[in-house]
Amino acid sequence: MRKILVIGIGAGDPEQLTLEAVRAIAEVDVFFVLDKGSVKQDLVGLRQEILRRHPTKPGHRVVELRDPDRDRSAAAYVDAVDQWRRRRAELLRDLVRDEVPADGCGAMLVWGDPALYDSTLGVLEEMLADGTVDFEYAVIPGVSSVSTLAARHRIGLNRVGRPFQVTTGRLLAEGWPSGVDDLVVMLDAHCTFTTVTEPDVLIYWGAYLGTPDEILVAGPLAEVGPEIVEVRRAARERKGWIMDTYLLRRPVA
Amino acid sequence: MRKILVIGIGAGDPEQLTLEAVRAIAEVDVFFVLDKGSVKQDLVGLRQEILRRHPTKPGHRVVELRDPDRDRSAAAYVDAVDQWRRRRAELLRDLVRDEVPADGCGAMLVWGDPALYDSTLGVLEEMLADGTVDFEYAVIPGVSSVSTLAARHRIGLNRVGRPFQVTTGRLLAEGWPSGVDDLVVMLDAHCTFTTVTEPDVLIYWGAYLGTPDEILVAGPLAEVGPEIVEVRRAARERKGWIMDTYLLRRPVA
Ligand SMILES: C[S@@+](CC[C@H](N)C(=O)[O-])C[C@H]1O[C@@H](n2cnc3c(N)ncnc32)[C@H](O)[C@@H]1O
Ligand SMILES: C[S@@+](CC[C@H](N)C(=O)[O-])C[C@H]1O[C@@H](n2cnc3c(N)ncnc32)[C@H](O)[C@@H]1O
Repeated sequence: MRKILVIGIGAGDPEQLTLEAVRAIAEVDVFFVLDKGSVKQDLVGLRQEILRRHPTKPGHRVVELRDPDRDRSAAAYVDAVDQWRRRRAELLRDLVRDEVPADGCGAMLVWGDPALYDSTLGVLEEMLADGTVDFEYAVIPGVSSVSTLAARHRIGLNRVGRPFQVTTGRLLAEGWPSGVDDLVVMLDAHCTFTTVTEPDVLIYWGAYLGTPDEILVAGPLAEVGPEIVEVRRAARERKGWIMDTYLLRRPVA
Repeated sequence: MRKILVIGIGAGDPEQLTLEAVRAIAEVDVFFVLDKGSVKQDLVGLRQEILRRHPTKPGHRVVELRDPDRDRSAAAYVDAVDQWRRRRAELLRDLVRDEVPADGCGAMLVWGDPALYDSTLGVLEEMLADGTVDFEYAVIPGVSSVSTLAARHRIGLNRVGRPFQVTTGRLLAEGWPSGVDDLVVMLDAHCTFTTVTEPDVLIYWGAYLGTPDEILVAGPLAEVGPEIVEVRRAARERKGWIMDTYLLRRPVA
């Protein structure tokens, strides 16, 4: 049977690859690489570098998969994601059928950890539900951007005996969620931390984590918030894209 | 200056080590290994295996640090942890001063990812605050048991555009937290999922993740909950200890 591996590759540093991932890469016949357009060229670059650095199977191929457009302005965010996922599942299904030998191994190199705000597993489930191509699949966990953020700031994500929540910029815009004092925010294109009105919040912010362009800023939100907005704007302008994440920590009541 | 590395080693599988961690291990003069008593001998075993498998610095040493007793019955959980951390900081401070050369490198191999419910960073901050030994330190992120749980069950931790919360068994006992439908539970010695009364909850449970003893159970909580209680009891009896974690997922309202 065809096998698909979903391989977490870490959040930007090729050294974050695990030994398990290195070993898996050597078994792969076809890598499916998602082309996210020129702004994300650096992201594709990491995957290429990983394949250059490590042993690969002789004759392996790299197949580019064009990302279907997603309606990012849609109010119905979840619907837009669903549609996009279905289209991507169809594209990938055809590629798997045509490119992966019947007893071969295909793989997707997934940014960070595949369990965190990534659509790959949803796409594979969609392909299995569709039923026209049969395959089995396995997931190799990776170091996430969240773990990298915490490591760089040398902090825990939780405080002793306390919970923490992982959320998105879009959700944070609706207000600080109840019941938690520690919030990790991902997928925030709008510096939503500027809308936070809680007193005495600390922010630990990081962009391009694990890459040579890594930027870190930490401190009281009221003090460093404006600085982050400016640093982020300048970096985004310079590179053409940005990926950032942050932890917000308010005093435990 | 003395340097201390806090190295995430993954949650049980020596193959989860990152290339960065492998490289760091080769630079270390003194490893501090926490001895958690015979029940946790397997955990110490993973660290020993990691040091056996990878290049280490000639003449490096492994120093065992006895874990100070912690008052686990204390109602004031946070206070008990604070006291224990202070005692551990004193022990480690003396060892770092006596064992690590003034320009040398000490390291702690931390289970999973150091940012997740681990006391090492708190202990190091305590040592720095104490001020009698000077050192710098850095953290190398690792693959957490949470990422491993999700990988084994081939699920995301979040659902599309939704938040998730990471919490403890102790906190779950107070009820399902408001505002989230996806809960990762760690540090649960009491199968607290049996107290959950929400309808239609799914559970994805894993024990000894990443090790040869790994056990996975998933399904509707009402159906598989009792099975997990029994599987867990039997496994714990057989091995003398257990480490388990799980995701609870309720329908999005
Ligand atoms: C689609 S999610 C994928 C997350 C990924 N699976 C992980 O484990 O990190 C993308 C979001 O992750 C965060 N992110 C990913 N890589 C990052 C990096 N190198 N630096 C900062 N943030 C990053 C950002 O919040 C970004 O919006
Ligand atoms: C003190 S915390 C440390 C967590 C660790 N830093 C990590 O990233 O996984 C210990 C808890 O982690 C979870 N855990 C750690 N390793 C595990 C494993 N191999 N299998 C299942 N659960 C594990 C359990 O919930 C356990 O109670």
